[in-house]
Amino acid sequence: MRYFITFSYDGSKYNGYQKQPNGRTIQNEIEKALFQINGGEVVNISASGRTDAGVHALNQKAHFDLNKDLPPEKLLRALNSLIPGDIYIKEINIVDNDFHARFDVKSKEYIYKINIGEYNPIEKDYIYQYNKQLNIEEMNKALKYLEGTHDFKSFTKTDEEKDDYVRTILKADLKEESNIITISFLGTGFLRYMVRNMVGLLIEIGEGKRKSEDIINILEAKDRKKAGKTANPEGLYLKDVFYE
Amino acid sequence: MRYFITFSYDGSKYNGYQKQPNGRTIQNEIEKALFQINGGEVVNISASGRTDAGVHALNQKAHFDLNKDLPPEKLLRALNSLIPGDIYIKEINIVDNDFHARFDVKSKEYIYKINIGEYNPIEKDYIYQYNKQLNIEEMNKALKYLEGTHDFKSFTKTDEEKDDYVRTILKADLKEESNIITISFLGTGFLRYMVRNMVGLLIEIGEGKRKSEDIINILEAKDRKKAGKTANPEGLYLKDVFYE
Repeated sequence: MRYFITFSYDGSKYNGYQKQPNGRTIQNEIEKALFQINGGEVVNISASGRTDAGVHALNQKAHFDLNKDLPPEKLLRALNSLIPGDIYIKEINIVDNDFHARFDVKSKEYIYKINIGEYNPIEKDYIYQYNKQLNIEEMNKALKYLEGTHDFKSFTKTDEEKDDYVRTILKADLKEESNIITISFLGTGFLRYMVRNMVGLLIEIGEGKRKSEDIINILEAKDRKKAGKTANPEGLYLKDVFYE
Repeated sequence: MRYFITFSYDGSKYNGYQKQPNGRTIQNEIEKALFQINGGEVVNISASGRTDAGVHALNQKAHFDLNKDLPPEKLLRALNSLIPGDIYIKEINIVDNDFHARFDVKSKEYIYKINIGEYNPIEKDYIYQYNKQLNIEEMNKALKYLEGTHDFKSFTKTDEEKDDYVRTILKADLKEESNIITISFLGTGFLRYMVRNMVGLLIEIGEGKRKSEDIINILEAKDRKKAGKTANPEGLYLKDVFYE
């Protein structure tokens, strides 16, 4: 039986989503719980994608197969009782055996939060504490240059094995409320560090160090060194993952 | 020179505010930093009051004396660079030598946050995760019985040495937004666990286990056993402290 789960987590106490031989990860914790539920047989879960250390998820999605047929509600309760409190399974559904939580993704939404007001120790692991003013208007203009289909090689870690860096950002948005800037990106796919690298550049644009139209040349350069810094992980949330 | 500080902290990683020989506390961390700034001489800080393990503060206040005359802005930077990131000194002012951060308090405001929506792993240390519906109207009525001057012995840990349990709640309020209930209490003084004990009872009233008017008898009984449970610490914030 193939199960499809929607889950949220606080990434601040984890070495990222993906399984590691050493180090605490989200995948390790869920697979440990499923191992118990599955009568001591290993369960491999396939998520929509990984998230890095310190990055949070509001609606991450994954699938896995179990030997036994458990009603989803029962599995939901069992799983939540076995995993730590900073991970939460929100929903479980039974899906077809050919459904794949990574390969079948149609689009994903990420949000990134920046505090431009006073430093807040209570949210230091949940919102990037920038604590200075940023030029919102210029950042908003910059987002429009990122929208669309582009080669995002300047915004990712270059990897010899990869030759396709073309991705489509369907919608990039920014809003500010009570000194919290929330930037959102809806896209068909994202490369490693791509959101944090775009946000790093957006911050430099907001600081006035770069102009929004510089993005045209940066995209064209296909060179990581041309873009900005990588923004901190704590402001980033995988908000949602969409399928057909 | 007497300094008066306003500071905020995430209480989730501390054994409360007050200094302890063992265990990490807010006071220990600030005094350790001041010891360095004060050239290796011990500095004792006096806060408006303590907060328990897991309880947060948005605007806690304290005073202390230093041997040397440091400009407040310089002291602010030095102190923030020496303390952990989950404590933050927001403001420092020089005050008269007869000012006392505890004895001169006129009133204090606490807030308590309850999530009646879906469990949120990202806010589990910052909002009490109740995750069920509560009768807001009945809770609001209950708050009106708590306002005013009463003997709050039923809402505190009884202590042989204390004989005065009379306190005044100037204003008690409740609002709900996006499934987060925020209860606020403005009062001239609060007994140990008093806010969490009032909230514990309010939750029982919201659940329908008690009626709002039961508060009349509970206050009259002056007996801790008559009131409700003690609400969890993670929902509680010392919001502000007021002086003349």
